[in-house]
Amino acid sequence: MNELCLIRWLRTRLPRHPRDLRGIGDDAAVLRGFQGRAILTADMLLEGTHFRPTDPPAAVGWKALACSVSDVAAMAAVPLAATVSLGLRRGVTDRWIRGFVSGMLRCARAYDCPVVGGDTTSGTGPVAIDVAVLGRADRPVLRSGARAFDAILVTGTLGGSILGKHLRFRPRLSEAQTLARRFPLHAMMDISDGLSLDLSRLCDESGAGAILEEAAIPVSTAARTLAAKDGLSPLSHALSDGEDFELLFTMPEPAARRLLAKNPLGIRVSRVGTIVRERGLRLRRRDGRTVRLKPS
Amino acid sequence: MNELCLIRWLRTRLPRHPRDLRGIGDDAAVLRGFQGRAILTADMLLEGTHFRPTDPPAAVGWKALACSVSDVAAMAAVPLAATVSLGLRRGVTDRWIRGFVSGMLRCARAYDCPVVGGDTTSGTGPVAIDVAVLGRADRPVLRSGARAFDAILVTGTLGGSILGKHLRFRPRLSEAQTLARRFPLHAMMDISDGLSLDLSRLCDESGAGAILEEAAIPVSTAARTLAAKDGLSPLSHALSDGEDFELLFTMPEPAARRLLAKNPLGIRVSRVGTIVRERGLRLRRRDGRTVRLKPS
Repeated sequence: MNELCLIRWLRTRLPRHPRDLRGIGDDAAVLRGFQGRAILTADMLLEGTHFRPTDPPAAVGWKALACSVSDVAAMAAVPLAATVSLGLRRGVTDRWIRGFVSGMLRCARAYDCPVVGGDTTSGTGPVAIDVAVLGRADRPVLRSGARAFDAILVTGTLGGSILGKHLRFRPRLSEAQTLARRFPLHAMMDISDGLSLDLSRLCDESGAGAILEEAAIPVSTAARTLAAKDGLSPLSHALSDGEDFELLFTMPEPAARRLLAKNPLGIRVSRVGTIVRERGLRLRRRDGRTVRLKPS
Repeated sequence: MNELCLIRWLRTRLPRHPRDLRGIGDDAAVLRGFQGRAILTADMLLEGTHFRPTDPPAAVGWKALACSVSDVAAMAAVPLAATVSLGLRRGVTDRWIRGFVSGMLRCARAYDCPVVGGDTTSGTGPVAIDVAVLGRADRPVLRSGARAFDAILVTGTLGGSILGKHLRFRPRLSEAQTLARRFPLHAMMDISDGLSLDLSRLCDESGAGAILEEAAIPVSTAARTLAAKDGLSPLSHALSDGEDFELLFTMPEPAARRLLAKNPLGIRVSRVGTIVRERGLRLRRRDGRTVRLKPS
């Protein structure tokens, strides 16, 4: 398939969404107007860095769109439309492209985020994929709203995403919507670079610090599997591994108790710590000792 | 500069635009709501394909944003905000990055299109850049509106862009706005893959064909220079070379005469042909003969 064939083929494959007033095939996509704030984000995946040439192409297509949907979800926003730019290398097979597109469209359907445009080109290097997503929110939840004494919570389990989750994760879109609708969220983000690094960012943006409870960190089975192989602790994987794409959020203590008592999300939620005034991250060990935690 | 340093540095360099309610540093950008249709487009540039490692980085930065602004302009829309994703290769110098960002920001200021987010990452391949632009329009002008007997017009001169214009072109944003405000535009697009190929697309979308007048094609000086070197005709360069980023548009004959009589654009405008019912492109030679024109 050359580029023109690819675009023609894509036009037959991309279902026309009611929000998309024009469909693929013009200089740009034309979308219905909408109320509220516009949310805009982009994520680039490079072959050899974010996925391997041997990874199933459908999983790569899913991941490419899911990364940006996760960013939109983390603002308590909903996605409206995506553009996908695909820089192919010579030697990419039609089978790879078809697989990629099918995975991408599965994600588009799952999160009601139609692919309305983008670009296809080819070069000399590894495959490069960039997905930009436009979303909307009435009241976006930022990283900067955390306050001292807020409870810190996370969805799901953490660590070892490289063993497979990083290609198959489900962006926490409905969960974030439920949280924003029913709880007084102060700050939220998705965990893409590891709990410790991302929490330190949230704290920096909020002008605060945090204490994490070792015993409360939801260590994933994959983190334990990886730890058994590489000699690092499961905890360090849970704190530092990237691409978990879980939600990290804060809210006042009483609201957090209410959430944990009657969890409406249908997925695991853990209270992992507390926002404090003093800058920096600390970890309370199981034995009660508190140590500085270096974000990594 | 590693990625974290780069993002920190970018935050100090990116001016905060009044439309941007949050600034760089969250999961996604938060923008003021707006009236009208939302316009969304993305363009990817790959080192070795769309620019050379030896091209001035500021020119590459300008081009990266200008390509997408040109797409938005071609819908008679105005840009609101851009995301820029940058896949760097090992060995890219800080000097290159600074140059790239300065050129990109010059374009952002020139077209009031703030860079509000994006992604930076690095891989093993050549540099990959993707720019997505969100715009707005009350009445976007599509490719599909051309009607039989419309005059076909283009801005500027065509061909030989590879000699330098492709890195320095000015997207025809104000010109497109003026055209849309003062003339009954039926169809419009930007010329990115050459007049003959792009006109054939416009015709296909409109269910029509076109006759071009050889004598009326505005052949650029660069097309003549290139022709003197490679033995192709200046005309074939003007018809087939990519990356002119001029406007190609159609309107009823009387309106076209009014435009040409008192050109309000301040740049050259040429009437190059006529939309006809019969599908396909034809070229009327200077001697009056009409030949089929194969888009290339």
